[in-house]
Amino acid sequence: MSDPEEPQDPRVVRTRADVLRAAVSVLLDEGPEGVTQPRVARAAGYAKATVYAHWPERVDLLRDAFLTVGRMPHHEPTGDLRADLLGELQSFRRAMVEHRLDRVLAVLAERTASTPELVEVRDAFVDDGESPLRALLSPHLSDDRLSAATLMLNGAVLHGGLLRGAPPADAVLEAAVDAVLVGFDLPRG
Amino acid sequence: MSDPEEPQDPRVVRTRADVLRAAVSVLLDEGPEGVTQPRVARAAGYAKATVYAHWPERVDLLRDAFLTVGRMPHHEPTGDLRADLLGELQSFRRAMVEHRLDRVLAVLAERTASTPELVEVRDAFVDDGESPLRALLSPHLSDDRLSAATLMLNGAVLHGGLLRGAPPADAVLEAAVDAVLVGFDLPRG
Repeated sequence: MSDPEEPQDPRVVRTRADVLRAAVSVLLDEGPEGVTQPRVARAAGYAKATVYAHWPERVDLLRDAFLTVGRMPHHEPTGDLRADLLGELQSFRRAMVEHRLDRVLAVLAERTASTPELVEVRDAFVDDGESPLRALLSPHLSDDRLSAATLMLNGAVLHGGLLRGAPPADAVLEAAVDAVLVGFDLPRG
Repeated sequence: MSDPEEPQDPRVVRTRADVLRAAVSVLLDEGPEGVTQPRVARAAGYAKATVYAHWPERVDLLRDAFLTVGRMPHHEPTGDLRADLLGELQSFRRAMVEHRLDRVLAVLAERTASTPELVEVRDAFVDDGESPLRALLSPHLSDDRLSAATLMLNGAVLHGGLLRGAPPADAVLEAAVDAVLVGFDLPRG
């Protein structure tokens, strides 16, 4: 019943959730270096052996901590591309402000340079966070144009949040979405 | 002749350049915390008193260190807006890759959250780095549209460099610039 390979077991589900919640706190307060099995076990109030049983490798615990932060609520698509792009950027902005995603992204950007094991974690985290925006654009764009549109829209929120003190206001996001709709000849209205 | 208020004096100019070069090394290797007058004096091979004479306040030394990194070579405008926007983004990309601007920006983003005195430094740094791009766009755009275009273009390079392992390739930058030209109805050709 408590086999860590059986995630349906409610006790296992609860243990994993407790540990990951503690891992996120440690990550946000102390940075990725703090996210070790003993440190997280102490923060979560579990035995070290329990944390090691679920995450034998530190990098897996770290990746799951990042992915837990990344699993922010996304916009629910309506089928109106303009509204959906805007809604997704607003969700990104809200996660930055309310769930400290700005800090997580800054930490990821800064530490990945000196910590090669973080590259895989960063890539999984960014892919996961970007997938709803790419899903909105990929029926209409591909290759370099898809990359450009994704980088520009997410980049506008990122740039504001990381280097301008706050992500852009609605009027700026609307101007960005409208320019992308016209500039890439996407369906609108 | 050696009055620090007289920057034309070649000895003063050399001293300031030496100290700032050392400050940039310390900044890149140890982060902003390392940039103190005594630490930088040691790295530069100057007396502490000399560094204090030029930079009585640590925050000024730190800002000048950031601005020294930020004073990357920019694209020389030709009058062709498409070529100039592309050239400026390529300069930004080159500075990220060749002058470790990616690391400086990541450090700024990460540390500003916990170090209020860095806010002023970050704002000066970002304004300085962005001014050529804004100068290209501001004859044609204002307010929210100017902000959106600037954030999208710089954001695309930033996002790639900070969270995707490398800034975008030329084909992606061209797709981004073309979309901005069409999307904001800017003069082209």
